[in-house]
Amino acid sequence: MDHLHQTFSVRFTYSVLFTERLFDYTNPLLADFFSQQATADTRKKLLFIMDSGVVDTHPDVQDDIRTYFAKHADLVDLLADFLVIPGGEIAKNDSDFVEQIVDAVDRYGIDRHSYVAAIGGGSVLDLVGYAAAISHRGIRHIRIPTTVLSQNDSGVGVKNGVNYRAKKNFLGTFVPPVAVFNDSQFLTTLDDRDWRAGIAEAIKVALIKDRPFFEWIEAHAEELAARDMPAMQYLVHRCAEMHLQHIAGGDPFEMGSSRPLDFGHWSAHKLEQLTNFEIRHGEAVAIGIALDSLYSQQLGWLTESDTNRILTTLRTLGFALYQPMLDADNSAGVLKGLSEFREHLGGQLTIMLLKGLGQGVEVHEMDADRIRQAIATLRKTDSLAFQTYKVSETL
Amino acid sequence: MDHLHQTFSVRFTYSVLFTERLFDYTNPLLADFFSQQATADTRKKLLFIMDSGVVDTHPDVQDDIRTYFAKHADLVDLLADFLVIPGGEIAKNDSDFVEQIVDAVDRYGIDRHSYVAAIGGGSVLDLVGYAAAISHRGIRHIRIPTTVLSQNDSGVGVKNGVNYRAKKNFLGTFVPPVAVFNDSQFLTTLDDRDWRAGIAEAIKVALIKDRPFFEWIEAHAEELAARDMPAMQYLVHRCAEMHLQHIAGGDPFEMGSSRPLDFGHWSAHKLEQLTNFEIRHGEAVAIGIALDSLYSQQLGWLTESDTNRILTTLRTLGFALYQPMLDADNSAGVLKGLSEFREHLGGQLTIMLLKGLGQGVEVHEMDADRIRQAIATLRKTDSLAFQTYKVSETL
Repeated sequence: MDHLHQTFSVRFTYSVLFTERLFDYTNPLLADFFSQQATADTRKKLLFIMDSGVVDTHPDVQDDIRTYFAKHADLVDLLADFLVIPGGEIAKNDSDFVEQIVDAVDRYGIDRHSYVAAIGGGSVLDLVGYAAAISHRGIRHIRIPTTVLSQNDSGVGVKNGVNYRAKKNFLGTFVPPVAVFNDSQFLTTLDDRDWRAGIAEAIKVALIKDRPFFEWIEAHAEELAARDMPAMQYLVHRCAEMHLQHIAGGDPFEMGSSRPLDFGHWSAHKLEQLTNFEIRHGEAVAIGIALDSLYSQQLGWLTESDTNRILTTLRTLGFALYQPMLDADNSAGVLKGLSEFREHLGGQLTIMLLKGLGQGVEVHEMDADRIRQAIATLRKTDSLAFQTYKVSETL
Repeated sequence: MDHLHQTFSVRFTYSVLFTERLFDYTNPLLADFFSQQATADTRKKLLFIMDSGVVDTHPDVQDDIRTYFAKHADLVDLLADFLVIPGGEIAKNDSDFVEQIVDAVDRYGIDRHSYVAAIGGGSVLDLVGYAAAISHRGIRHIRIPTTVLSQNDSGVGVKNGVNYRAKKNFLGTFVPPVAVFNDSQFLTTLDDRDWRAGIAEAIKVALIKDRPFFEWIEAHAEELAARDMPAMQYLVHRCAEMHLQHIAGGDPFEMGSSRPLDFGHWSAHKLEQLTNFEIRHGEAVAIGIALDSLYSQQLGWLTESDTNRILTTLRTLGFALYQPMLDADNSAGVLKGLSEFREHLGGQLTIMLLKGLGQGVEVHEMDADRIRQAIATLRKTDSLAFQTYKVSETL
């Protein structure tokens, strides 16, 4: 008997829109979006789900949203209630939050053509994206990222996820948002750690793909550390652009085995876990970048001068490049991150290293002694910076 | 500030393979599949999840699988344990089963390049497909449908799902399997109701798309009712082929608003619910087809002769075309199915009717009085068949 062969392609499209004060009712961006999406046959609903951190730092945002959609009541039916979810990793650790969102979808009768909009940091966006993706086999979700990290990286991409039994992103899907709105106004209220942490992903992508962008960051490191907004806007825009290009040009749903944008991440994921998420993802990535740059130097792939430019740029931005958990018992410690990284991605271990500034290269194994040597270098050279950093944290 | 626009396409491909005795170790089909999928860099794992109904009716199947993969141990690492899930709607109603599968994925270290194979009816396949889709953002899943309905319709498609608070498929995703194996041997042990029920989906697709296929079913109705296997194999193959063509040629992930393959389904979904799933999905679809055919006749779109050919074919196959719940209080009864159907699909109500045998046409409203009239016709003309059917059930 013959066999049937099925092949089809699905086209995904969305915009990442940059603005300031998205919910100022004189700002037409959001209204224009809903106007373009409107169809004659049905009214669409819109449910906002907000990060508690955003509600705390922007107490007017709920009123602003109500005013905005009262002025544009013809476009979409704003649901009167807002769902507020605790920000940070806790949002992804407790399955009750998934259920709260699914319940809201059910209770408010939000169908596949209605919208759930998430406002917040990466964790809340990941959670809401996941709950939206599994409800009715996918309701439309809008992302309004409020941190540097989510505006330039995770929030503009196609992944969502929650943790399961403390395993990061164990449950999740690949589903693009219908739109992303990056409002730089939200960045003004970030604390310094969150402002800084998001820059690590920009350095990561610059180092593996775009030397001029790295040199721009290097040249503007002091301005960025001093919270210069135009510099940050440029950084977020360029980093988001490269992230989008990587997704579209590669393997958007990661059906193959390599993820070349994950430079510095194998140890970062493990460090976050070992510190019980006391260090931010971006802070861990900065350490991971330093570690894998030193490792690349040991292999003779990166010059000492280029390695120092990377470390100096990270330090100028205020990153500590050593964390005591790097020296935790190595069998259960950071080195364990290598095998967990392989298991999470599936297939063969693939690690990105550097052969120059802006030139990433993949390898499939790493040497434990060389990793320990790189850690030792960070311990020795970064202890002063680390002390300084800890003091500033406890002020 | 300018905006970024993201566009990409993702290509999905899989085969539907027809065979007899898939797990006979002399049958090379499954071995060939894993051989083609093998990569040099990693070993892949394979977890089987089985419908308890299959284990009951095919007590040797677990041994056969173990023997098969012992003979082909070079291809994939078969996990020694099989997960057995109760068959039927219960599999989709209890969220514990999702958790059991996700736990197994975690416990056995099944990564994105390993496999979960589901053997069973549509409910177990829907459940396993869902759990696989959300684990690690999607592990590879193989479907081995064991009923007519799953072999010719749901099992070859791209949807999965579970119920949530008794709402059918409230949680789910669109994710294609990596392969479907249709083994006709499994059909031999189906009870008559399950054998018959799956034929309804073939009649549905024939009526809206393919008059010659309807006429073939009409001509072979007695053979099909008498459980002629070559006739059933042809029916399953042609129906699966049309289902695949519909998916590839249309809107595979249903991002638009119409689902033209859903002829006869708005009332069928509601009838299943009203009878607490005592009638099979296919039995409900047969009634839904009869109802919407009579409705089409009332509109003058279908001749009396063509309508009778449809009803006669359904009755020859042994379908009862009246169910007392059709006459349940209509505000909470079958008519409620119209609004629920719209809500589930989202957007505008879209119902498929007939303008001839093999010619479906979409409408966006239905008249309650005409529906009641069609129900009355079924009540009058089908009472005898219904009695007969009930008697055979209680034997």
